Amino acid sequence: MAAPQQFFSYVDGNAGSFIQRLAKAVAIPSVSGDGSSRKHVFAMAEFLAHEMEALGIQVNSVDLGNHVLDGEELPLPPVILGSFGHDPKKKIILVYGHYDVQPALVSDGWDTDPFVLSPDEKTGRMYGRGASDDKGPLLGWLNVLEAHIKSNIELPVNLRFCFEGMEESGSEGLDELINSRVGPGEFFDGVDCVCISDNYWLNDRTPCVTYGLRGIAYYKVQVSGPQRDLHSGVFGNTVHEPMTDLIHLLGQLVSTKGEIKIPGISSLVAPVTADEMKRYEVLDYTVADIEHSAGAQVAISDNKTRVLMGRMREPSLSIHGIEGAFSAPGAKTVIPARVSGKFSIRLVPNMTPENVDILVFRYLQEEFAKLGTKSALKIENLHGGKPWLADPNHWNYRAAIKATETVYKKTPDLTREGGSIPVTLTFAEALGVNVLLLPMGRGDDGAHSTNEKLDRSNYIEGTKLLGSYLHEVGIISKS
Amino acid sequence: MAAPQQFFSYVDGNAGSFIQRLAKAVAIPSVSGDGSSRKHVFAMAEFLAHEMEALGIQVNSVDLGNHVLDGEELPLPPVILGSFGHDPKKKIILVYGHYDVQPALVSDGWDTDPFVLSPDEKTGRMYGRGASDDKGPLLGWLNVLEAHIKSNIELPVNLRFCFEGMEESGSEGLDELINSRVGPGEFFDGVDCVCISDNYWLNDRTPCVTYGLRGIAYYKVQVSGPQRDLHSGVFGNTVHEPMTDLIHLLGQLVSTKGEIKIPGISSLVAPVTADEMKRYEVLDYTVADIEHSAGAQVAISDNKTRVLMGRMREPSLSIHGIEGAFSAPGAKTVIPARVSGKFSIRLVPNMTPENVDILVFRYLQEEFAKLGTKSALKIENLHGGKPWLADPNHWNYRAAIKATETVYKKTPDLTREGGSIPVTLTFAEALGVNVLLLPMGRGDDGAHSTNEKLDRSNYIEGTKLLGSYLHEVGIISKS
Repeated sequence: MAAPQQFFSYVDGNAGSFIQRLAKAVAIPSVSGDGSSRKHVFAMAEFLAHEMEALGIQVNSVDLGNHVLDGEELPLPPVILGSFGHDPKKKIILVYGHYDVQPALVSDGWDTDPFVLSPDEKTGRMYGRGASDDKGPLLGWLNVLEAHIKSNIELPVNLRFCFEGMEESGSEGLDELINSRVGPGEFFDGVDCVCISDNYWLNDRTPCVTYGLRGIAYYKVQVSGPQRDLHSGVFGNTVHEPMTDLIHLLGQLVSTKGEIKIPGISSLVAPVTADEMKRYEVLDYTVADIEHSAGAQVAISDNKTRVLMGRMREPSLSIHGIEGAFSAPGAKTVIPARVSGKFSIRLVPNMTPENVDILVFRYLQEEFAKLGTKSALKIENLHGGKPWLADPNHWNYRAAIKATETVYKKTPDLTREGGSIPVTLTFAEALGVNVLLLPMGRGDDGAHSTNEKLDRSNYIEGTKLLGSYLHEVGIISKS
Repeated sequence: MAAPQQFFSYVDGNAGSFIQRLAKAVAIPSVSGDGSSRKHVFAMAEFLAHEMEALGIQVNSVDLGNHVLDGEELPLPPVILGSFGHDPKKKIILVYGHYDVQPALVSDGWDTDPFVLSPDEKTGRMYGRGASDDKGPLLGWLNVLEAHIKSNIELPVNLRFCFEGMEESGSEGLDELINSRVGPGEFFDGVDCVCISDNYWLNDRTPCVTYGLRGIAYYKVQVSGPQRDLHSGVFGNTVHEPMTDLIHLLGQLVSTKGEIKIPGISSLVAPVTADEMKRYEVLDYTVADIEHSAGAQVAISDNKTRVLMGRMREPSLSIHGIEGAFSAPGAKTVIPARVSGKFSIRLVPNMTPENVDILVFRYLQEEFAKLGTKSALKIENLHGGKPWLADPNHWNYRAAIKATETVYKKTPDLTREGGSIPVTLTFAEALGVNVLLLPMGRGDDGAHSTNEKLDRSNYIEGTKLLGSYLHEVGIISKS
């Protein structure tokens, strides 16, 4: 049975206050990857705990201790564990979200202040860092709970919340916490399934449920030579230049067509089956869709299936930037003394950070040796996470599909996602239950990029979707 | 005849106040390449004009109008023209210097605040941005004038000063000004020779006079694709990535051994003569010297002559950095939408910015076409300057050599420099007189790099050198 009508009515009637809740959250620049913003990540945790307690959720903010970020020791943001409902006749549904965000500066090219939720009344788009990734979906769960409480609707399940503040920076400390709380009587004991809303539709029109994620292995490759930066006039053509060496090294990683040049990577990739191929063919997705999301005609291929597989079931290698070189506007005639290339590889079955590390380290060392330079090489793996695949025929998925059909009057696409949410795998392995990804946002939301947005309708209908999902799960006999 | 003893005594006796003068100048962050520092460049011009007028120099600060820097229209810093002495029986010596500096941030790796002159009493090194390039030498001329006035020593020449504030950013507007003031009765009319103190000794022990400079052609290569930055998980292996394209393109510019790969460049380089080869062999310079200056064993060759020629008479290509990519510490999983590689080529006879531009633009376009990407390419020449060579047997050089022998008791090395001072060529061509480069600083001063310094002894003895040079020039009969 779908969620009762009063639930939908309450959500529609309180859309304005739900958007206010999101605006408050976006206003807190909880950037986990930048040490100077750490206080804001903690402020976001306090805001969240306060909102949850106001809804009657039993909250426990777990201190994860300290970590070192760029040489500075910093306190880790807490993991917020919440409990609502202890009825043994009801299933226990664990929902996960993260309250930290990617870095964002107006100077990156934002049209609005990234930390002020800026709704465009005409398009219904609400711009702001974290609006879609992942503050909107996270607050969606609180909206659902508020709607039930204020409308005196009984919640058909017991809810457990796990909200972290380091997802954009490798989820440090989370795995250890989860694995330490799975025993009898512990917080995660008895969880029947997990629902995570932290990804996106394939396009801007068709909802989806997601049963796979790529993993990641993120690398920092440092090349150093002179003791300090040098004048390119005085030293040009007299010393080995680390920047030249690094450029040559990074050029050996991936072709301009996206093919990873590191030997052994392709043989780690699980072969595609005929059944799997069919799934890509039926998806409501075109090459035009991805070019619409990217805002330009830059698709790597004109073949829909090739592009979909490139995102869902093939690895990728992206070079993100260089630390230590001249990066400002203008012209500086410097030979940088120490430069660090940053790149990451998205992992698919059967790749793991461990088996990829071996190939990457060996390859970089071999290619660097070929350069015949006097510069020094240092390779670091900054963070990693395995890929994940779930069974899309599980009751958890059937409930999500039913709820989507109820709210959106459409059968959702059954997708695998290109991004990484390492915790998904942690939950699947630590709790041994089915994990579902039920996205709220659209494929063109621009998570991690400038002008990130969440459509008003996705936020409001998405809140209805999360609520409906709980009711669909609730009516499935607890076996 | 060398300068009178009272001159040397005054310089020694007033070293402290001369260093204070330098400290005041270093404290003004006159970075010409960064629009936000422009007000400081103007403050530096005011400081200088005030110091000059206090010495009785007739000062004329010439407004050069506005220019556009990174899309922002800014006023150009003034060129400060100064006159001291109008005795028709004396030569007119034009001295040039620049009061702007390269960018510098503590976060670049400075051990001290770059804009606080920080003397190390033990080593005698005085650290600070601009200490050696070029505020120390520029103030050296004022020290010389002060010494003569306060000691009632007649200056043996008429002095003309030309101090600019845009040298580190292409000397915008200067050439036009010079060429407009060379006519009869104009400021530069009647100049007998030019002396510029804006380069360095080869090493840290032997003074030199310099008769050649490399030119420069500085390029910005922009590769753009998506409309905005993208999430590498969502878009990795589905779109052409500008950063991958740029890395491949930059990798085609220069080998890790310093060989420029752009076809046609090497055939522009004037062949070396036997006489010229000899000059390199006799220089007081070893591979160990350059590695000492660089602070690491990173010389491109173990052959002294190869390294010297690489700096003095061969072109070089340095990749300075990338604008628009992720350059901060930490890990950001972004596909940058628009990235711009910055590189420059040091030019030697018979290369010119014009004949090099043709080769660079054509080559980059050809190589980019081979990449088979949907990204877009845009190439800009940010600034350029021709190489310069003078006759080292001219009386202007003989005077400098004599003065060096008087002050340092050493015959100076006769060198060509790797850096660019385009104005040198402008003076040579516009005034049709001999131009001399008479450096104050050492080869390990670290101009343009972190922890730039000027040795106390080089500042004080260098002041004596500039004064002695004026006396040596003064006694040569004005013909």
